[in-house]
Amino acid sequence: MTGRTTGGASDADRLARVALSRLGEPGDPRFAVHTAQMGASAFHDALLHERDPGSGVVTDVATRLASMEPERDLELAARMGIRFVVPGDPEWPRQVDDLSAAGEVQRRGGPPLGLWARGPLRLDRLLGSVAVVGSRSATTYGSDVAATIGAGVAQAGFPVVSGAAFGIDQAAHRGALAVDGPTVAVLACGVDRAYPAAHRSLLEHLAGHGLVVSELPPGSAPTRLRFLARNRLIAALTRGTVVVEAAVRSGALSTANWAGRLNRAVMGVPGPVTSAPSQGVHELLRLGAGTLVTSAEDVLEMVGVSGAHLVEEPRGPERQRDRLSLRHQQVLDAVPVARAAHVDSISRTAGLPISDTGNALIRLREVGLVVADRDGWRLAALAHR
Amino acid sequence: MTGRTTGGASDADRLARVALSRLGEPGDPRFAVHTAQMGASAFHDALLHERDPGSGVVTDVATRLASMEPERDLELAARMGIRFVVPGDPEWPRQVDDLSAAGEVQRRGGPPLGLWARGPLRLDRLLGSVAVVGSRSATTYGSDVAATIGAGVAQAGFPVVSGAAFGIDQAAHRGALAVDGPTVAVLACGVDRAYPAAHRSLLEHLAGHGLVVSELPPGSAPTRLRFLARNRLIAALTRGTVVVEAAVRSGALSTANWAGRLNRAVMGVPGPVTSAPSQGVHELLRLGAGTLVTSAEDVLEMVGVSGAHLVEEPRGPERQRDRLSLRHQQVLDAVPVARAAHVDSISRTAGLPISDTGNALIRLREVGLVVADRDGWRLAALAHR
Repeated sequence: MTGRTTGGASDADRLARVALSRLGEPGDPRFAVHTAQMGASAFHDALLHERDPGSGVVTDVATRLASMEPERDLELAARMGIRFVVPGDPEWPRQVDDLSAAGEVQRRGGPPLGLWARGPLRLDRLLGSVAVVGSRSATTYGSDVAATIGAGVAQAGFPVVSGAAFGIDQAAHRGALAVDGPTVAVLACGVDRAYPAAHRSLLEHLAGHGLVVSELPPGSAPTRLRFLARNRLIAALTRGTVVVEAAVRSGALSTANWAGRLNRAVMGVPGPVTSAPSQGVHELLRLGAGTLVTSAEDVLEMVGVSGAHLVEEPRGPERQRDRLSLRHQQVLDAVPVARAAHVDSISRTAGLPISDTGNALIRLREVGLVVADRDGWRLAALAHR
Repeated sequence: MTGRTTGGASDADRLARVALSRLGEPGDPRFAVHTAQMGASAFHDALLHERDPGSGVVTDVATRLASMEPERDLELAARMGIRFVVPGDPEWPRQVDDLSAAGEVQRRGGPPLGLWARGPLRLDRLLGSVAVVGSRSATTYGSDVAATIGAGVAQAGFPVVSGAAFGIDQAAHRGALAVDGPTVAVLACGVDRAYPAAHRSLLEHLAGHGLVVSELPPGSAPTRLRFLARNRLIAALTRGTVVVEAAVRSGALSTANWAGRLNRAVMGVPGPVTSAPSQGVHELLRLGAGTLVTSAEDVLEMVGVSGAHLVEEPRGPERQRDRLSLRHQQVLDAVPVARAAHVDSISRTAGLPISDTGNALIRLREVGLVVADRDGWRLAALAHR
């Protein structure tokens, strides 16, 4: 082993992290604590030589270290176009270091030892990224909205991060790809594997145009534990998490929960209250754990650089009424909606002289807001309320 | 005129309020200020004898007072089953006195001089009522949700208050009527009139079983100004306002705005983000001006007597996983989702001895959470994530 590579981590540190990441499960607090305290290389060597670094619980698996070949792992990975990025590398996405806080480590939420990455997009470009996650059993509505938000976020230059699952994940990726925008799948298995198998071509496409990321070494299989760990990583990598459809207790809500703990923006897209896949999102919003968003613009306002993506307040169709003088508005407000009234009655209601009221009514008729017949004046249909 | 009726306002006060309510528009700050300062009867007499009570603007219409016959108004109203309720009457809904705050008076939101009421429900029962309002051009979804919420609120014994317009208003009333629950229409015209005309039978039904209310004397026609004033009254009468569907700048949002100013609960029912009639509600929720609700239970939690209507947190279907021991959960979490794995690999992932892992796997197979084949163990389809 040689010393440091230019601007990156040392070879010893990198190789130690490869071996350790084969040894422990993602987020394991024992690995996080000792790696932080001793450094990866010293922790690795201590385990290898069975010098227990203070906590007996890790030695039970330490003997497996001797049989590992981290150089060969890196070499095989490189042949598949996979790189291993570790803290200190220029490409390291520093926002995931937020997982080093003691509270996160204790919840099995420690930082990853390193990230296996496949694809042209650089991990350090994910600083402004947005997670779009949700139910695997999404409705057509949910998929459409996820694709639209994915497209809008990616088109604004912010990478879309999701999990490559069926339903919302897939729709978010496809939305970003449709506008040739940056998009990233974070997996609960090795980046060389296709899970679900039906998404092999989607994952190949992401590896070719965007990025596929995992903290698990190539070859690793997905487990429930790894999905939960993956959710914390999606939250940590991104500036905010948008939940599009999510049943109560879904994985997408666990991602949102991590995002909240890490002070990322938590956002939810509402849907019909009669739709089960929207129930989890509504609960999130009802409890004030997230902000309601309806569009990519809303999302960008929540996560974007201040002032760069301000939402235009939606306005009703500009009304003719707004262009009237106050006096004319006053008369208009006094004209009956249903049955017609005479000018003297309208002038009393408006609190204005009869002559002024009459002049105003004539002007209002010219612009089509009131109509006159033999019973008097009433509002034109268009001007109701 | 005689003195005070038992427990109610004096006849002089009541008759003065009848005459004044024919003279001014609802919410007129001049009437509110002088009535509050002088009392209705003295203010009326001052106007009648053209002794300007300090503000020249009211004398322009004062001469009309002389021709009024408030006794006859009350008598004609009584023949139509209409009563006139004024402050001091046992039936007076005291919560509307919140409109006497100076800020409200200046916004044309002063308290009503009195309330014309038609129907068996008493106005003082509206203290715990809930307004359900929304778009006239409602979708089927919105109408269904409004009816369901109307039914749930009314069934819990809380009166439903709305306008009597097409769309959400109508659906809310019908929901309450379907469960024989209390429901109230607040009109922008006299309670003897049907607006819209197509709702004549609905209004007759409400007058027969619930209540129809207005601050405008019988015979009055609806105007835009009166709709706006009516909205403040709906907000003031109720403990909270639920907006079901509302375009941006709709009347329902003005009701919600009044409810917020009056420290009533403001609630919004979300819908598809692709649905224009939900856009105003989403904007309300996005800006934090209202709380998301999805059901009558949510609404009752927001407005109900503390603890009486607590919402049960929705829970996912109870999972078999939750009934497992921690050890069994640990093993389950280590079983691969897709390809099978052997017991030694699973025991390493779980961090448990092989024998314990094997026993756990057998138990997990018995309850259907994992399956075994010649390649090893994997999660059963049902247990995914």
